[in-house]
Amino acid sequence: MRFLHTADWHIGKNLNGYDLLDDQVATFHRIERIAQEKQVDAVVIAGDLYDRSIPSEAAVRTLNSMLGRLNLQDHFPVLAISGNHDSATRLGTGADWFALKSLYLNTTLVNAFEPVIIKNTQFFLLPFFGIQEVRNYFHDDAIRNVNQAMERIVKAMKEKFAPDKAHVLVAHFFAAGAQRTADSETLVEVGGLSAVSTRLLAPFDYVALGHLHNRDALHDERARYSGSPMKFSVSEAKQKKGVWIVDTDPFKVEWVPLPPVHDIHLLKGSFADLVAAAGKHDPADFYDIELTDHERIPDVLSKLREHYPKIVSLHRTHQARQVETLVDQKRRRADPMDLLADFYQQTMGDDLSAQQRQWAQQSLEKISEED
Amino acid sequence: MRFLHTADWHIGKNLNGYDLLDDQVATFHRIERIAQEKQVDAVVIAGDLYDRSIPSEAAVRTLNSMLGRLNLQDHFPVLAISGNHDSATRLGTGADWFALKSLYLNTTLVNAFEPVIIKNTQFFLLPFFGIQEVRNYFHDDAIRNVNQAMERIVKAMKEKFAPDKAHVLVAHFFAAGAQRTADSETLVEVGGLSAVSTRLLAPFDYVALGHLHNRDALHDERARYSGSPMKFSVSEAKQKKGVWIVDTDPFKVEWVPLPPVHDIHLLKGSFADLVAAAGKHDPADFYDIELTDHERIPDVLSKLREHYPKIVSLHRTHQARQVETLVDQKRRRADPMDLLADFYQQTMGDDLSAQQRQWAQQSLEKISEED
Repeated sequence: MRFLHTADWHIGKNLNGYDLLDDQVATFHRIERIAQEKQVDAVVIAGDLYDRSIPSEAAVRTLNSMLGRLNLQDHFPVLAISGNHDSATRLGTGADWFALKSLYLNTTLVNAFEPVIIKNTQFFLLPFFGIQEVRNYFHDDAIRNVNQAMERIVKAMKEKFAPDKAHVLVAHFFAAGAQRTADSETLVEVGGLSAVSTRLLAPFDYVALGHLHNRDALHDERARYSGSPMKFSVSEAKQKKGVWIVDTDPFKVEWVPLPPVHDIHLLKGSFADLVAAAGKHDPADFYDIELTDHERIPDVLSKLREHYPKIVSLHRTHQARQVETLVDQKRRRADPMDLLADFYQQTMGDDLSAQQRQWAQQSLEKISEED
Repeated sequence: MRFLHTADWHIGKNLNGYDLLDDQVATFHRIERIAQEKQVDAVVIAGDLYDRSIPSEAAVRTLNSMLGRLNLQDHFPVLAISGNHDSATRLGTGADWFALKSLYLNTTLVNAFEPVIIKNTQFFLLPFFGIQEVRNYFHDDAIRNVNQAMERIVKAMKEKFAPDKAHVLVAHFFAAGAQRTADSETLVEVGGLSAVSTRLLAPFDYVALGHLHNRDALHDERARYSGSPMKFSVSEAKQKKGVWIVDTDPFKVEWVPLPPVHDIHLLKGSFADLVAAAGKHDPADFYDIELTDHERIPDVLSKLREHYPKIVSLHRTHQARQVETLVDQKRRRADPMDLLADFYQQTMGDDLSAQQRQWAQQSLEKISEED
C-alpha cells in the first residue's frame, strides 16, 4: 500500500484579503500529478478541506471539482475526514454515494470505528471531534480531556485491528510528543488546549495527521503532519510545504515538496533600499515588509505597492507601537466576534471552541449592553 | 413509465418562527410511502429542495437523509433540479456521484439538454435559470425575456427528442396559460416578472413544474404544478396539498392528497367565542386569527395562546390599521434588505431577482447615507 498524505487544504482561504483560490487550484494540480507519478493506491486528506464551515460558492465549486478529478476521473480511492474548520454536516453531503466509488469521506465519530480496507491496509478515519461527542458515544461522562478521549477511541479501534493488515489512522488534532522516560508524561499545552500524546498513537503503523500547518511541528517516525500544501499566513513564510508518500510494506516515507505558486517573502529594509531592490522580486508574490526608516514617510504603503503590489503586512522597526496590519475594508467594519475569533486563531493557531465562543459572545453582548 | 411529481419542499423553512422540520420529515415519509404503494419508476422533484441558498446544518442533514432513503435505500431513480430558493452550486455538491446511482440532480443549464432516459421516457431537467445564463449559453444577447429564453431552450431540447420515447420536462418557473385564440398572446405579468407561456411547453408529453405552491395555479392537462407538499404560509391555508402520479403510456395523471401533519386554520370571532371554541381545535395546529371585538383586550395574544399555542398571525376586524404580525424577535432587529425581500416575497409570491436586489440595496444604502 502506497498513499499520498496531505491535509489542511483550506479551500476558500484568503491571505489578508487576497483571494488564494487560483493558487489553491494550481497547487491541487501539482498534488494530483504527484499522486499519478508516484502511482499511489490512495490519497489521504486529513481534514480542513474548507477554510470555514460555510464556504463560499466558489470554494464549494472548487473542492467539488478537485474531488471529482481525483476520484471520478483519475480513479484514486480518496480517504478524507472533516477538520475543525469544516462543518461536518455540510462537508458530509453526498458521502454515502461517494463511498460507492471509493471516496471515503468520514465526518462522524460513529463511523470512525469501521475501517476502510484497501489492499493490505486498514484505514481508520477519525474526524475532528469534541469531547462531548466522545462522552456520548461511549456513554462515559468521566472522559475529561482530549487525551482520555483518544485513549478510548484507540482502544475501540484496536478491537477492529485485523492482525494481517497494516493499520493507519487519519486524524485531525493537536498531537505532541511526550516524555516517555518519566513516570508521568508531560503533555504540551498550548493556549489551554491539551494535546494528544503520540504515545497513544503507537499502535498504528502510521498516523496521517492534519491540523498544524507545519510538517515540522511533530517529530515522530510513524505519526506525521503533512502540513498545509501552501503557505497560508506570514507565520508560515519559512515553512517547507509538500506531501508525504507513505509505503506500509516495507514501511517508508518520502517527502515530495510543493514549490509555492506565489511565495510569501519577509523583507526588511529602508524605503529607498526596498524600492531599489524591487526588480529582484516577483511582483506577483506576497510580501511582509519591515520598514527600518526612522522618519515618517507619507502614504508609504501606496508607494511601496507600486513596486510590491501584494503587501500583506507592513511593520516599522522604529515605531513598534504602530504595527499596521493590512486588512480588507470589510474587516474594519466586521463583527467584534469575528475579529476576536480571528485574533484567537492567529494567536493560538486554533479556533475558538463552541464553549469559548459562547463565553466570548456573552461577554461581548454584556459590553455592548453597557455602552 | 410511471413517476411521482412533487416540488417545492423548502426544507428548513419556518412558519413565522415555528420550525417545520419535523413536519417536513413526516410529510416526506408520506411521499415515500406513496411512491412505494404506487410502484413508481422514478420520483421527480421540480426545484426548491431547500428554502434558502445557505440552508441550516439541520436542513442539510434532513435533505441528505431524505435523498438517501429514496435513492440508496428504496432504490428509486430520482430526477431533481434546483429552484430559485436553492443555491445551484451548493445543492449540486455530489451530483456526479449521485448520477451513478440514478439520482439525477441537475443544477446547471448546460446539462439540461442531455436527457435522462428511464424506460420509455426522456426526462429533460431544466433548473431555475437567469436570462443572462441563457444568453451566454446560446451566445445570443437578443434574448430579452424568459419567454424568448424558453423558446430557445425548448428548440434545443426538441433536437434531442427520440421519436419513440415520451418527453418530459422538469422545470422551475412561473408558467401561465396564454390566450391561444387571439393573434398575439397575452402573457400574465406578476410584479414585472413575465411568465412562460404554456404554448411553449406543448412539445412535451408532460411538464412537471415547480415554483408556485398552489397546484391550481395553472390548468393545463399536460403541464402541472404539484404545488408544495405542505402549507408553508397562511395564504396557503385553503390549498389542497399532494403529489401527482403520472403515467406516460397511456397518459394518465392521478392526484394523491397529503393530509397536513399540522394544519393551518383561519379563525374569526370574538375573544369569548374563540376561547369557548378552543376545545374543538387541535392545539398542535397553526392558527391565523381575526378578532372581531371592538374593545381593546390587554395582552390578548398571550391569552389566546393559552388556548391556541401556535398562533402565526393575529388581525383585528375593527382596528384595520393595527394588523399585528407575529414575527420572532430576530426579525424586529433584522437587516432592512431582508425585511424588504421578505415583504416582496410575501406580496409577489416570488423572490427579488438579482437585479432587483441590487437596486434595492443601492436605494437602502442611499437612504442610510442620507440619515
